[in-house]
Amino acid sequence: MGNEIVLTGITTTGTPHLGNYVGAIRPAIAASQRDDTESFFFLADYHALIKCHDPERVQQSRLEIAATWLASGLDPERVTFYRQSDIPEISELNWLLTCVTAKGLMNRAHAYKASVDENVNNGQDPDFGITMGLFCYPVLMAADILAFNAHKVPVGRDQIQHIEMARDIAGRFNHIFREHFVLPEAVVAEDDSAILKGLDGRKMSKSYNNTIPLFDTEKKLKKGINKIVTNLLEPGEPKDPDNSTVFDIYKAFATPEQTAEMRQKFFDGIAWGEAKRELFELINGQLAEPREKYLELMSNPALIEDILQAGAAKARARAKPSIEALREAVGLVKFA
Amino acid sequence: MGNEIVLTGITTTGTPHLGNYVGAIRPAIAASQRDDTESFFFLADYHALIKCHDPERVQQSRLEIAATWLASGLDPERVTFYRQSDIPEISELNWLLTCVTAKGLMNRAHAYKASVDENVNNGQDPDFGITMGLFCYPVLMAADILAFNAHKVPVGRDQIQHIEMARDIAGRFNHIFREHFVLPEAVVAEDDSAILKGLDGRKMSKSYNNTIPLFDTEKKLKKGINKIVTNLLEPGEPKDPDNSTVFDIYKAFATPEQTAEMRQKFFDGIAWGEAKRELFELINGQLAEPREKYLELMSNPALIEDILQAGAAKARARAKPSIEALREAVGLVKFA
Repeated sequence: MGNEIVLTGITTTGTPHLGNYVGAIRPAIAASQRDDTESFFFLADYHALIKCHDPERVQQSRLEIAATWLASGLDPERVTFYRQSDIPEISELNWLLTCVTAKGLMNRAHAYKASVDENVNNGQDPDFGITMGLFCYPVLMAADILAFNAHKVPVGRDQIQHIEMARDIAGRFNHIFREHFVLPEAVVAEDDSAILKGLDGRKMSKSYNNTIPLFDTEKKLKKGINKIVTNLLEPGEPKDPDNSTVFDIYKAFATPEQTAEMRQKFFDGIAWGEAKRELFELINGQLAEPREKYLELMSNPALIEDILQAGAAKARARAKPSIEALREAVGLVKFA
Repeated sequence: MGNEIVLTGITTTGTPHLGNYVGAIRPAIAASQRDDTESFFFLADYHALIKCHDPERVQQSRLEIAATWLASGLDPERVTFYRQSDIPEISELNWLLTCVTAKGLMNRAHAYKASVDENVNNGQDPDFGITMGLFCYPVLMAADILAFNAHKVPVGRDQIQHIEMARDIAGRFNHIFREHFVLPEAVVAEDDSAILKGLDGRKMSKSYNNTIPLFDTEKKLKKGINKIVTNLLEPGEPKDPDNSTVFDIYKAFATPEQTAEMRQKFFDGIAWGEAKRELFELINGQLAEPREKYLELMSNPALIEDILQAGAAKARARAKPSIEALREAVGLVKFA
């Protein structure tokens, strides 16, 4: 309490890979262990419905992602960890904010405009295939943030605009109803440490089909690492660590000492097979324990449910008084 | 149960007048007494926020309108009477529907297009001053209806399109998720009996400033009736009942026998003052009891609150299992 509130939304589509772990999961969990912050983590499953109309995939992904974060060290006692769809106050706030949001603001959203541009380039109606979910998404995101008066929201660069929109909507509400929403700030990683390279040397991403699984079997992890593209240099020939995906991934898991040693081994001409073996040992050593925890959680969905229900209760205890105050501000109070 | 479900939304802005009573309140309450229908009545207070950002006005209007309907004979034991904002399931459903609604459908809404046209005519940006509340309104209205799988929705002609949109959204959801929303139908009064003339002979409407108050004091009712515009025919001169606002309003409250008698009195040259006196006696006779009930309710907001809380419990008991089924359909079920 009284600390800075940091809110992290977790998209519940797909299965997390090594890149998600290094770029999002690990740093967010580390940040949540600081004493001067209070962290809220939520599974953005309402957002998942915008793009995914396959109930089994939505459901499976929610489960896998909850298990992944818990197995990776997210401490539900310390942070508030909940599913967006378990918090009716967010849906309510979504409507209150909808009533003060300028439509013109939404017209300018990058994601919406990109879809419109694509339609226009294809000779389609500008709004062809665009749902109200895509168009209204920034309002729901503002509700996610403002329901808890979060100060900081860690996001990727493509999400900065949405935080600005949340500020804009909050400011408008404050102006009309003399309310006191905190104006949230985006936190964007300044360096590139959050970006892990994938099998082909590009950013590791599901859309490039170049990912290495996070909590799949040890065998699959090994197989993934063996598929990393290398050059044709033979064992004994010096190799350039700074142009090597193997080294790049190694660095993301190693201590500075380990990194320095491996750098030297590259200069000394380590064989690619040997470098990959060492990379596997390093990563597997760090993932073995959380992997076991992950499999344990996945085999016990009721336990995850209990954790999320407890998280929802914690989150609602915080959101409820805020929403009550907002209802009073707009004129929706009880008659007695 | 098993009967046809009729859902009536009551806009919570302004203070009800005689025209509202004759055109909406009285027929809706009469219809709710039929044995083959199950009626849901709700105060559309979320909708009120779209246009009204004055909390005191929203609050006062909700109270007056709840008291008006109860005083007019709405039986909360027989029907389900609730405030929209007390039903979190409606907000939740609003988002589920948002995710399947085509933006193009909303672009074609008359109310939105009218605002755009006005802006364009004034040389403004097309979306100038338009909020997302106005733009998204038809989705929330669909949620109001579909949360209870209403078969029939009594509306004015200007609202027919919104019911068609609710059908469209329901159909799309049914198609994607193999769900079974009832496709609602608009019910529009075919004759003109629902339209009461105001002081100046035009339709009685707040926007024409030609209304007669419903449950204000007896004195104000008399004063209102005395202001009805008549022609200059003297007592004794025959008068045309079919071109008289006094007769028109009389007819709306009289039995066929009383109407026939008054028609004869017009032919016989009744004085305007006398006709107005008889009109006042007729209306006042019918409104005296409900007016007393209204004042009693207005002086006891806690009682209205209790009635609405009981109504909300009834409504939520119906909406909850539906929403649970919908959550399952889209993939938002519990993990155990």
